[in-house]
Amino acid sequence: MAKYKAPLRDMQFVLNEVFEADKLWASMEATQEVTPDLADAILEEGAKLTENELFPLNLSGDEEGCRFDQGQVFTPKGFKEAYQALSEGGWMGLGGNPEYGGQGMPKMLTVLFEEMLYASNASFTLYPALNNGATLLLDSHASEEIKEKFLPPMYEGRWIGTMCLTEPHAGTDLGLIRTKAEPKDDGTYSITGNKIWITGGEHDLAENIIHLVLAKLPDAPKGTRGISLFLVPKFKINADESLGDHNLVNCGNIEHKMGIKGSATCVINFDGSEGIMIGEPHKGLAAMFTMMNYERLSIGIQGLGLGEVAYQSAMDFAKERIQSRAPTGPKNPDKAADPILVHPDVRRMALNVRAFNEASRAFASYVGMQLDISKYHTDDTTRKHAANLVALLTPIAKAFITDRGFDATVEAQQIYGGSGYCSEWGAEQYVRDARIAQIYEGTNGIQAMDLMGRKVFANKGEFLAIFAKDVREFLQEVSGQEAMQPWVTALETELKRLESVTEAVIKAASENPEEIGAAAVDYLNLFGLVAYAYMWARMAKVAQDEVDADSSGFYAAKIQVSNHYLKRVLPRTLALEQQILAGAEVLMTLEEEAFYAE
Amino acid sequence: MAKYKAPLRDMQFVLNEVFEADKLWASMEATQEVTPDLADAILEEGAKLTENELFPLNLSGDEEGCRFDQGQVFTPKGFKEAYQALSEGGWMGLGGNPEYGGQGMPKMLTVLFEEMLYASNASFTLYPALNNGATLLLDSHASEEIKEKFLPPMYEGRWIGTMCLTEPHAGTDLGLIRTKAEPKDDGTYSITGNKIWITGGEHDLAENIIHLVLAKLPDAPKGTRGISLFLVPKFKINADESLGDHNLVNCGNIEHKMGIKGSATCVINFDGSEGIMIGEPHKGLAAMFTMMNYERLSIGIQGLGLGEVAYQSAMDFAKERIQSRAPTGPKNPDKAADPILVHPDVRRMALNVRAFNEASRAFASYVGMQLDISKYHTDDTTRKHAANLVALLTPIAKAFITDRGFDATVEAQQIYGGSGYCSEWGAEQYVRDARIAQIYEGTNGIQAMDLMGRKVFANKGEFLAIFAKDVREFLQEVSGQEAMQPWVTALETELKRLESVTEAVIKAASENPEEIGAAAVDYLNLFGLVAYAYMWARMAKVAQDEVDADSSGFYAAKIQVSNHYLKRVLPRTLALEQQILAGAEVLMTLEEEAFYAE
Repeated sequence: MAKYKAPLRDMQFVLNEVFEADKLWASMEATQEVTPDLADAILEEGAKLTENELFPLNLSGDEEGCRFDQGQVFTPKGFKEAYQALSEGGWMGLGGNPEYGGQGMPKMLTVLFEEMLYASNASFTLYPALNNGATLLLDSHASEEIKEKFLPPMYEGRWIGTMCLTEPHAGTDLGLIRTKAEPKDDGTYSITGNKIWITGGEHDLAENIIHLVLAKLPDAPKGTRGISLFLVPKFKINADESLGDHNLVNCGNIEHKMGIKGSATCVINFDGSEGIMIGEPHKGLAAMFTMMNYERLSIGIQGLGLGEVAYQSAMDFAKERIQSRAPTGPKNPDKAADPILVHPDVRRMALNVRAFNEASRAFASYVGMQLDISKYHTDDTTRKHAANLVALLTPIAKAFITDRGFDATVEAQQIYGGSGYCSEWGAEQYVRDARIAQIYEGTNGIQAMDLMGRKVFANKGEFLAIFAKDVREFLQEVSGQEAMQPWVTALETELKRLESVTEAVIKAASENPEEIGAAAVDYLNLFGLVAYAYMWARMAKVAQDEVDADSSGFYAAKIQVSNHYLKRVLPRTLALEQQILAGAEVLMTLEEEAFYAE
Repeated sequence: MAKYKAPLRDMQFVLNEVFEADKLWASMEATQEVTPDLADAILEEGAKLTENELFPLNLSGDEEGCRFDQGQVFTPKGFKEAYQALSEGGWMGLGGNPEYGGQGMPKMLTVLFEEMLYASNASFTLYPALNNGATLLLDSHASEEIKEKFLPPMYEGRWIGTMCLTEPHAGTDLGLIRTKAEPKDDGTYSITGNKIWITGGEHDLAENIIHLVLAKLPDAPKGTRGISLFLVPKFKINADESLGDHNLVNCGNIEHKMGIKGSATCVINFDGSEGIMIGEPHKGLAAMFTMMNYERLSIGIQGLGLGEVAYQSAMDFAKERIQSRAPTGPKNPDKAADPILVHPDVRRMALNVRAFNEASRAFASYVGMQLDISKYHTDDTTRKHAANLVALLTPIAKAFITDRGFDATVEAQQIYGGSGYCSEWGAEQYVRDARIAQIYEGTNGIQAMDLMGRKVFANKGEFLAIFAKDVREFLQEVSGQEAMQPWVTALETELKRLESVTEAVIKAASENPEEIGAAAVDYLNLFGLVAYAYMWARMAKVAQDEVDADSSGFYAAKIQVSNHYLKRVLPRTLALEQQILAGAEVLMTLEEEAFYAE
């Protein structure tokens, strides 16, 4: 596939028509300057950048990969120049705090740019994505002095951030980390330990790398309550803010991976590195969690971006490929065969991909909107309500979007037939690049545990009730509209199913804690399907209102895809309900030893 | 993962206990010499070969890949020696016709050896797998002279076969092929054309390569009825059967692919090559179809083998990995964390994988058994009945086993967390290697069309009735057994669901042919789930009979995994039923243009 086109029309539909972002932005002080024109201009410029600068490096970046040589990491050809363009365009600070040089754009808008980034070049995008996380963390928890010193160059892209969490024996369970931080007389800390899987831990894109490192103080309590957070720059910073000596931090190697080969996944050794504590002692993990919702949503969008580019790529192929005849007779009698989209099964695959991509786009914006409201709204209750929705929906945004994004890349690859398996077409790269998004930033199983345990069971469904209220208000609004009746019926049925399953799991889990993990993944999928039904109903409503006056076909297509979701996707809830209600016992009875091979 | 262990115990369970192969073999003349002892010995020797010779080359073969240099293809290090071992052990002719030097082993047994081959090294296995197809084809359609000349060295592995079907513009639609065959005065043909995706089209493993090539005679009718089949050796054969001149056939390049990197996927150019016609003019595709059922079952087993080795690999990892605590409190209080199998969701993934792997193994043997009966049984009706079951179940064996095999590799990779994405552990290779099995040998969408159109709609469910009768006979048999009641109820319900959905689709499709393709994939999945429920019920029955007298835990585990399938997998049929009944209209309404990106 030779091109990627950012789906601007669909993005504007979601932003302006489905969620009426302009009204929201005008209503909050921090976003008042974000007019629809400004938002459009940003999306259009973002489209140019990603289509023209990043996408052309995607296939070549995968082929070339990163190269490790004696502690140095070289990114694929062109990455440095593209990073330069991104930095100079001010994109590195798009969502950043304006007090320190960020652009202060709302998340609801930046998620759309993030989609373009991941779609055009997922490997490349991980460098700025990690920087976003690091700057957000510093903005929330660092001292004024640190923020003034570090945020401006990080928003400019001159310096770039990383997150150093994982150690060889401590992935999901960060309580096990061993990296030590010894206080020194000058108020800094000496950091010693080995971190793995550090995305962008070393590379040649920026002049300095700012590591945010989890480590334990000598007096740290055991487990996750004894973790502190430290800033460790690759090059120390002189008093005049120029770069000083190389810190005692080095890259031991890079991983060979299934995909995202242009993203350097590093072993980073801290060997008495000089670090600065961020936030309070032993509160490092809590600090980390403040940015988690943003990062998890961002990784969700990796799934969406790859699903979108995979769809476009498959359709570019389908447009040219003729093979066999339509079941109802030749559509293309002058040619030797018909285009493959005459075949119902090819359409089924394409519609599955679209039904998820388009709902994922709306859902990511919806969660972004709640993040903005929770941050900027003046009304306390509204803010609280939005924050609870964010807490509830973030694990779904991370796991469901990436699971469906991976499915989308696989289904798009299937449309290609054999060409999809050959590297030159790019389809197989999207599959490999999408796969990691289901694993990192907390595996999707961990997301499901977070949803079921902390976000549903712990508050006995209180957050779910907020979501359900939002859905029912919408249903109320469209209840008189004839064209919306199938949605009114289906969405109410599905919401009730979700509520009754929730009740059953809460009851079961209060007797046996294993019920949480046993239900988790199926429950997240059930919730995701219902949330996407809500997104589709909202999109269908706008489309129904506009379709008669429209000659572009955009709204008619929206209605068709919504029908596909309703009739040929949503029934999956029936199976999930039964699987959840089957409970934990069936999973827990088999002896541990019986799982292992002879 | 450092090892692969062929699941001999489970294989013997399927063969001897579930299907009582010994009785069947004793009852048919062609298989009378196959005693349980002989079968065991073959499986045990096969296990040694695959575990010790092939598996150690799997990861290195993927890393190194095949190398193309000026028309020559070099397989990865060690492949040549392993191929030698395979050939010298007589394994290349294991299922071959004894009249020409084959071992004549029944398919029901050879499928189990095939599983070991694919599990230990899928790339390598494709070379012998294609030879199996080629020899089968020659055995069925070539003249006595050709068989005497070609089969013995092909069974010995000195020469090795390929299948040359696909051309750049003709994948699924073979009616479009352009390769020409011009008759020459000496009775041979001059073959000219370009073939792509030729597995093992060129390599360094054997002294000669025997291409079986689809091409068109000058007077060929259009479409698939004008295709003939030709044998084109890489080196011509002298009258004394020694190798003569290099034929005018050469390898233009090899593909860079997502996986199976040790398998050479070649562009093969026939440039006036000397070929011999096999079978009758214009009947080439029909000849090809006689071996299709074997080849498709074999590719299905690729999915099973990779699912099995992926499971073993994930469990080897899980055994060592400790992370977090069990929901009900520490299981491993002396250590820093508990083994990951204490977590219900990790168990859920592992049980999903097992529930499909073990049912796939049984199902492959069941289909293999029907192939043997259809070939060797003396009773005409029994033979016919079995042949119809083979026709019905083969597309399911190919598509459902490979789809679930792919899922298994993905789910096993997920158990690993981040390590699953790094190449050194091997888990990601299984995913990449499994993906192709859903695409080649007729995509899984094509398999589903074959099932729904030719095997169900065309005979108005007649073949399905044979299958249903077999299931109901079993249900009758166990109807009095208390422990089997959940299965009796569930299987009868699911079989009725399958029958009623079948009826609905046949009715709809008789009015609109698009209904076949619209239902196809969901229908195949529904059928697959029901067929696997039948397999699990049969396995559960044996296990229930044996569990009380058994101290090994084997039968107890079998019962637990069968419960998992029943409670947490089989409900998927509920969704599929609704998706199928949604019909074609929802797929066909969207304008073709609306599928393509802006």
